[in-house]
Amino acid sequence: MTEMDISRWALRLEYDGTGFVGWQKQQDGVSIQSLIEAAASRLVGNRPVSSITAGRTDAGVHASGMVIHIDFPGDAKINGRQIRDGMGYYLKPHRVVVLEAAQVSLDWSARFSAIWRSYQFKILNRQARPALQETHVWHVKRVLDVDLMQEGANYLLGSHDFTSFRAIACQARSAVRTLDVLTIHREGELVIVNTKARSFLHHQVRNMVGSLVMVGSRQWPPEKMREVLEARNRCAAGPTSPPDGLCLTGVGYPEDPFA
Amino acid sequence: MTEMDISRWALRLEYDGTGFVGWQKQQDGVSIQSLIEAAASRLVGNRPVSSITAGRTDAGVHASGMVIHIDFPGDAKINGRQIRDGMGYYLKPHRVVVLEAAQVSLDWSARFSAIWRSYQFKILNRQARPALQETHVWHVKRVLDVDLMQEGANYLLGSHDFTSFRAIACQARSAVRTLDVLTIHREGELVIVNTKARSFLHHQVRNMVGSLVMVGSRQWPPEKMREVLEARNRCAAGPTSPPDGLCLTGVGYPEDPFA
Repeated sequence: MTEMDISRWALRLEYDGTGFVGWQKQQDGVSIQSLIEAAASRLVGNRPVSSITAGRTDAGVHASGMVIHIDFPGDAKINGRQIRDGMGYYLKPHRVVVLEAAQVSLDWSARFSAIWRSYQFKILNRQARPALQETHVWHVKRVLDVDLMQEGANYLLGSHDFTSFRAIACQARSAVRTLDVLTIHREGELVIVNTKARSFLHHQVRNMVGSLVMVGSRQWPPEKMREVLEARNRCAAGPTSPPDGLCLTGVGYPEDPFA
Repeated sequence: MTEMDISRWALRLEYDGTGFVGWQKQQDGVSIQSLIEAAASRLVGNRPVSSITAGRTDAGVHASGMVIHIDFPGDAKINGRQIRDGMGYYLKPHRVVVLEAAQVSLDWSARFSAIWRSYQFKILNRQARPALQETHVWHVKRVLDVDLMQEGANYLLGSHDFTSFRAIACQARSAVRTLDVLTIHREGELVIVNTKARSFLHHQVRNMVGSLVMVGSRQWPPEKMREVLEARNRCAAGPTSPPDGLCLTGVGYPEDPFA
């Protein structure tokens, strides 16, 4: 297709990652991307469409504010409301919905135009396993001290080489990232971690949370976070937390495409 | 069994009502009560146990703080931790857990000693259907004005004959109830109704919410709530809201058995 033949749309998505292989298409298992592209394709007479995402969430990871863009054939007569409602209809019965859609220029990219991503990680900190929030929290029985966790988290703020917190399989060329926000607070039985950065390495949030739980449960002193960071070695950090508690909450752009 | 043969325990439960026929045992379908009693029975060598609940929640209604009591055989050597963890184990993989257990006297009843019940009802007020909170919210697309809803709700506070808001099948002798709390507030896309009373009639909360949504969507003026109440006729009120948004959040007693 030439550029004339394309209309590009930004979409904001909410999905429950439970049971999916993650965002990206895989040989086996259902991906969010395959469902989204199939639904978008049905909107335009089953012609092929492609999508680019601001973040390739892992299997079991949720999103309340993912942003992607989709290139539709340029002759398709569609508006934002039709994309939201029509795709929402075709996506049934899956727990994937389009919250809103807005046309963008062809030089806009959900991935490369993004200037920040934010994630929330929820830990259920009590003895009984989760009933109401199963697959949406990490269940940690040991009592967590959120003040110690925050003290440890503060060592990670700013620009660092996050090699210790990246997955071995991570394909990013540089492991240097700038962490703008990493806060921990308690709401009753929930311990909630919020974080924000221009971009994150593969598994970075889950690996940071795994280490912060070592601090909160008093298995590590908070200062250990600095050591772990300086080791630049994945083996120095704590375990990778399960995906269940993680949710991509938002993606930011120089200008909000949905405003 | 004589009284000497019994030890009575108060249990606080959390459960996801999705897919269950409700609290009470039924001919067809799985009830929370049958799972709870089966798990309790396994704790004491498969001897029969019986339970009494503070509230018989309907099919699809959730609980974050239900209280029940269970009579175990008096010779069973069990403590609160064993009940919580043992029953939690036997209740797998169901979304039903015991949060805590405490021994109570034989004249204590989860149902008759209770002096208040509290419920929360969540409405997802946006165009797109729920993905992350499916089966935990009522999806209402029409924009709701929570100030109008609160104005309408205020007519229901205090002691009234709630015939207009009770299920036709409701078996309570009197329809007079005293509503102590009925507040409505917005948290982003969620409209949250909190209510509290000594006790509620069958379907009372769901019927009140159904009518309040008529007010919030400007189909009824707030003053209509007074008319509906005074009609003492179920047909005068709005539709029964679906069970999904409803959660029993707590039950109160003169002395907290878990303190």
